[in-house]
Amino acid sequence: MRRVYLDNNATTRVDETVVAKMLPYLTDEFGNASSSHLFGVEVAGAVRAARRNVQALLGAAHDHEIVFTSGGTEADNTAILAALDAREGRDEIVTTRVEHPAILSLVEYLQEKRGVKTHFIGVDEHGRINIDAYRAALGPKTAIVSVMWANNETGTLFPVAELAGYAHEAGALFHTDAVQAVGKTPIDLKSTQIDLLSLSGHKLHGPKGIGALYVRKGTKFSPFIRGGHQERARRGGTENVPGIIGLGAAAELALARLAEDEAHIRALRDRLESSVLRDIGHCRVSGDAPNRLCNTSNIAFFDIEGEAILGHLDRAGVAASTGSACTAGSTEPSHVLQAMNLPPEALRGAVRFSFSRENTAEDVDRVLEILPGIVHKLREISLASRDSEARMGAAS
Amino acid sequence: MRRVYLDNNATTRVDETVVAKMLPYLTDEFGNASSSHLFGVEVAGAVRAARRNVQALLGAAHDHEIVFTSGGTEADNTAILAALDAREGRDEIVTTRVEHPAILSLVEYLQEKRGVKTHFIGVDEHGRINIDAYRAALGPKTAIVSVMWANNETGTLFPVAELAGYAHEAGALFHTDAVQAVGKTPIDLKSTQIDLLSLSGHKLHGPKGIGALYVRKGTKFSPFIRGGHQERARRGGTENVPGIIGLGAAAELALARLAEDEAHIRALRDRLESSVLRDIGHCRVSGDAPNRLCNTSNIAFFDIEGEAILGHLDRAGVAASTGSACTAGSTEPSHVLQAMNLPPEALRGAVRFSFSRENTAEDVDRVLEILPGIVHKLREISLASRDSEARMGAAS
Ligand SMILES: Cc1ncc(COP(=O)(O)O)c(C=O)c1O
Ligand SMILES: Cc1ncc(COP(=O)(O)O)c(C=O)c1O
Repeated sequence: MRRVYLDNNATTRVDETVVAKMLPYLTDEFGNASSSHLFGVEVAGAVRAARRNVQALLGAAHDHEIVFTSGGTEADNTAILAALDAREGRDEIVTTRVEHPAILSLVEYLQEKRGVKTHFIGVDEHGRINIDAYRAALGPKTAIVSVMWANNETGTLFPVAELAGYAHEAGALFHTDAVQAVGKTPIDLKSTQIDLLSLSGHKLHGPKGIGALYVRKGTKFSPFIRGGHQERARRGGTENVPGIIGLGAAAELALARLAEDEAHIRALRDRLESSVLRDIGHCRVSGDAPNRLCNTSNIAFFDIEGEAILGHLDRAGVAASTGSACTAGSTEPSHVLQAMNLPPEALRGAVRFSFSRENTAEDVDRVLEILPGIVHKLREISLASRDSEARMGAAS
Repeated sequence: MRRVYLDNNATTRVDETVVAKMLPYLTDEFGNASSSHLFGVEVAGAVRAARRNVQALLGAAHDHEIVFTSGGTEADNTAILAALDAREGRDEIVTTRVEHPAILSLVEYLQEKRGVKTHFIGVDEHGRINIDAYRAALGPKTAIVSVMWANNETGTLFPVAELAGYAHEAGALFHTDAVQAVGKTPIDLKSTQIDLLSLSGHKLHGPKGIGALYVRKGTKFSPFIRGGHQERARRGGTENVPGIIGLGAAAELALARLAEDEAHIRALRDRLESSVLRDIGHCRVSGDAPNRLCNTSNIAFFDIEGEAILGHLDRAGVAASTGSACTAGSTEPSHVLQAMNLPPEALRGAVRFSFSRENTAEDVDRVLEILPGIVHKLREISLASRDSEARMGAAS
């Protein structure tokens, strides 16, 4: 069976050239990057080069602004906690209702257990942040703002450069979870006021278990994971050298191919989306259509369950998802779509298709070959069961 | 130049069979272990098998007692913070003066910034914990005890099973940092009262960037890294699948070869140590010689600098260290040796040789070939400079 992977917002395949660059650091070059002897020194040089590749992808001014972490979640947690810790007298957080659980579950915990006041800014039906509410929430108590660069479920892009400017006017730090944006859209941190940015290797054809937090030079910081003096005393723990090398290689590749990949991916995504809207109907795209990541299409199929669609797709070898993998299997409708006030008939029918540069026209063909039949069949079942419910209601 | 690696307490080479098992999970089996579709389900099965391998190595009763982390440092931080968070009414920590920075720098921070009272138990000149002081420090306010299984600098083993019993009598949780012990000495957690245990993949021929925290079933827990519901909602973040697979493979191998490796390693270590003591002289072994890890030899060369010895060894292709890699390059004498009250003439002359199953008799031969000359030369220089100082003193 031909397998089609359209769940690249959950994770991506590690690029083969990335794997090749990592391999020596699992075997011959196995030294501890912090060791003073030759086994360590050689490895430390490679780590430095990887850091520069991440710096370049982000358009950061200095390579030491990059702190390697174990992934996006750790980077997100670190940003929030570092800001609260380092900014005395300021103890409020401003964020949105549509952040990833890596932000939301932490700030909810902080609110509940540590009394940290948090403002959750809403979005409109296209997933766009309410800027007036955002500006009103900022104040002299705001320690940190955290707004994602791109939403993982819909791809909607947030005006982070503008939002960072407002945050600074209020004297607050600005963090952005750019886990879904990095490698998919151009980023130039030098030209923004963003203080902190999270990214994750496995979303851009790098390995799992590695990520980074950008910390603008001069930003007061307090480590989250405490131990040795690694990462300029900002993150304890033996450096994950193969992971760092892999992330560096993935960053280099992403930067070199950014425009080319974006065009390729967008064309595939747009063809899938327009064909589905036209040929299947009774569905709609969620998110800010003109202002989205090139690779994400979140389609709400009215009156049926997204989970049911996914089950049929999966049996046909096609992988997609309802929303984030962290909540896969959950029966709750997505908090993102709920925040967007999707109509009830659309809320449970969401399917997210997310592309990468590895997808091909044949992948789209395959989905278009099977999806109409799946949706049609599920609608018939749903209609039949509603009919019989109606009849039973009438009979009683 | 023949290279000799005797810094295995800093990190180890990933075993080739481990690398081979990891590789598919970087390429074909790249799915997100939390995804519901086939790409995810296949991977989740492999993660389960790896968890069982770690369970077996620890002699744990249940595989769900294993929580994967990004390494030993994260596991250590998690244990301490989870206990403080989950055990209301108890807010004191009992630990030792000779823990790794992954414990010490966290508890020092907690003491300073959050007013968490911490008892640092001392050790005697052999590095053995003062059990009376330990028992006296335990009380109704103790949330958690953290005592390492084996010290990373000297290899000294702590009586953790006994200490855990005392901790439980006081109603406290017992954590052990077993990063240096796991894979080098038999462990059977079922037969102890240990509640929490940290380990790290790269110390046992597994990859860097992966570790685990054992959490005994029924232990109240609070996550450190918060995000999605991975690891039964105990550790957020996309699972580091290749790392987990690597750790599982390394654990399987370590368990299968434990007795054989221990004998091989101990023989090499003992030959190096006895030859150095006999042929070089004016030096002594630090730590509890009869009660140490099989692989560690920390030798204090009187009246010269360990760093100078290491520099010469390094230029001859031999890697060893003064203490932990996290503090490599630091000019402070080791906190472990200071806590042991080493005589001043011994404190700066420490060199740690740490072996693994990959070392050979030729490695020991090579060190014995060059080390006497290095020490002799450094002692001549040191003597000459002291002479000239003395003469200058007399002349003034
Ligand atoms: C927007 C966003 N933030 C954070 C994360 C967490 O990253 P990681 O899984 O690498 O910890 C993800 C993906 O899982 C994400 O999509
Ligand atoms: C005793 C001990 N604890 C904790 C650690 C930290 O482990 P990691 O470097 O994997 O975070 C180390 C090694 O660095 C160690 O030797």
